[in-house]
Amino acid sequence: MREKFHDELAELGNQLTNMCRLAAESMRRANTALLTADLALAEQVLGSDSDLDDARAECEIHAQSLLALQAPVAGDLRTTLAAVYCAEKIERMGDLAAHIADTARFGHPDRVVPAELEATFAELGDVAAGMADRLAERITGDATGAYAELHETDNTIDSLHAGVLRLITGDRWEHGVQSATSLALLARFYERFADQAVSVAKRLEFAETGGLPSR
Amino acid sequence: MREKFHDELAELGNQLTNMCRLAAESMRRANTALLTADLALAEQVLGSDSDLDDARAECEIHAQSLLALQAPVAGDLRTTLAAVYCAEKIERMGDLAAHIADTARFGHPDRVVPAELEATFAELGDVAAGMADRLAERITGDATGAYAELHETDNTIDSLHAGVLRLITGDRWEHGVQSATSLALLARFYERFADQAVSVAKRLEFAETGGLPSR
Repeated sequence: MREKFHDELAELGNQLTNMCRLAAESMRRANTALLTADLALAEQVLGSDSDLDDARAECEIHAQSLLALQAPVAGDLRTTLAAVYCAEKIERMGDLAAHIADTARFGHPDRVVPAELEATFAELGDVAAGMADRLAERITGDATGAYAELHETDNTIDSLHAGVLRLITGDRWEHGVQSATSLALLARFYERFADQAVSVAKRLEFAETGGLPSR
Repeated sequence: MREKFHDELAELGNQLTNMCRLAAESMRRANTALLTADLALAEQVLGSDSDLDDARAECEIHAQSLLALQAPVAGDLRTTLAAVYCAEKIERMGDLAAHIADTARFGHPDRVVPAELEATFAELGDVAAGMADRLAERITGDATGAYAELHETDNTIDSLHAGVLRLITGDRWEHGVQSATSLALLARFYERFADQAVSVAKRLEFAETGGLPSR
């Protein structure tokens, strides 16, 4: 019974890992769609967002049935609850990638990101997708230190995000208000994607070590 | 034992109700701070955000101990899990109100919202805070129809939000890029506050009626 339970928990971990890989892929595709004004790719990201929604629902149903049938306690209970929490956050990461794809679609056939910000957005997308990859590894491996690691990467995102805001609100901005507004919201989607990743890492680590994070 | 469990669930409901009231209050104060450039009030909102964080942690610890000690099933399990879910969303509503207060603080002594948008932002704040009030009533009362109701109110928020974006990106905008960028992000905080409220309503209703919402 107990061994079966741990198999089930491992399966829950696999589901979350799969969700992280989907989120990473959506972020990479959305980012490429944005930087190359690729309408078909943007629509692909938008169309596949429901896969993550479904994966989240499956994860939650699985966790709920574990709680009902096995009534786990202590660390097993924490891990099961953490899976529900993380599934929701990873689904949100997918939503944010979809928002980026939607911005690309809305802007098509124009490129939303002007030349001087292309490198910054390329890096935002790379770093954010990398965070989702890293989570995927951490979920099935050792989560110790995951929070500190992802938090550190999040600082990179924060400074890229701040750089975007500085540029668009600076004196030398030549692309007008509409472009600036759109880029400010866009940059925030990457920042929020990264925040969710940090939040997942924090929860994973706390599920392993004991306490409950206040945030 | 069973009766005691339902007392505990009712107590969990009271905790969530209290969180909704805190979120409504934060939104009202943040909105006033924003519209009147009231620095002290903005700082009060920012200082009290940790109350919601603490309330969330308490709610989660309470739910976790119910799961561990009582091993609820079916509707009771759904309700207990819904409480964890809702507590997280309501805490996020508080964060978004704090972001609004932070924008007011950052802009002080200037008013961030220009005269022609004051009425719109006043309404955004009123409607959003009203959604949190409504949730507070629904949590301890009957949640049937809560999702449809809050979803309807959310349409008002969405159209106010769209109105802000239309104005700041229109040809007659006279307040420059920095103001437009700041207002676009601000408007999104209200919109996200409302989205969380809808999400809570949906979860409350599903916990009562059975299924699991895919989103």
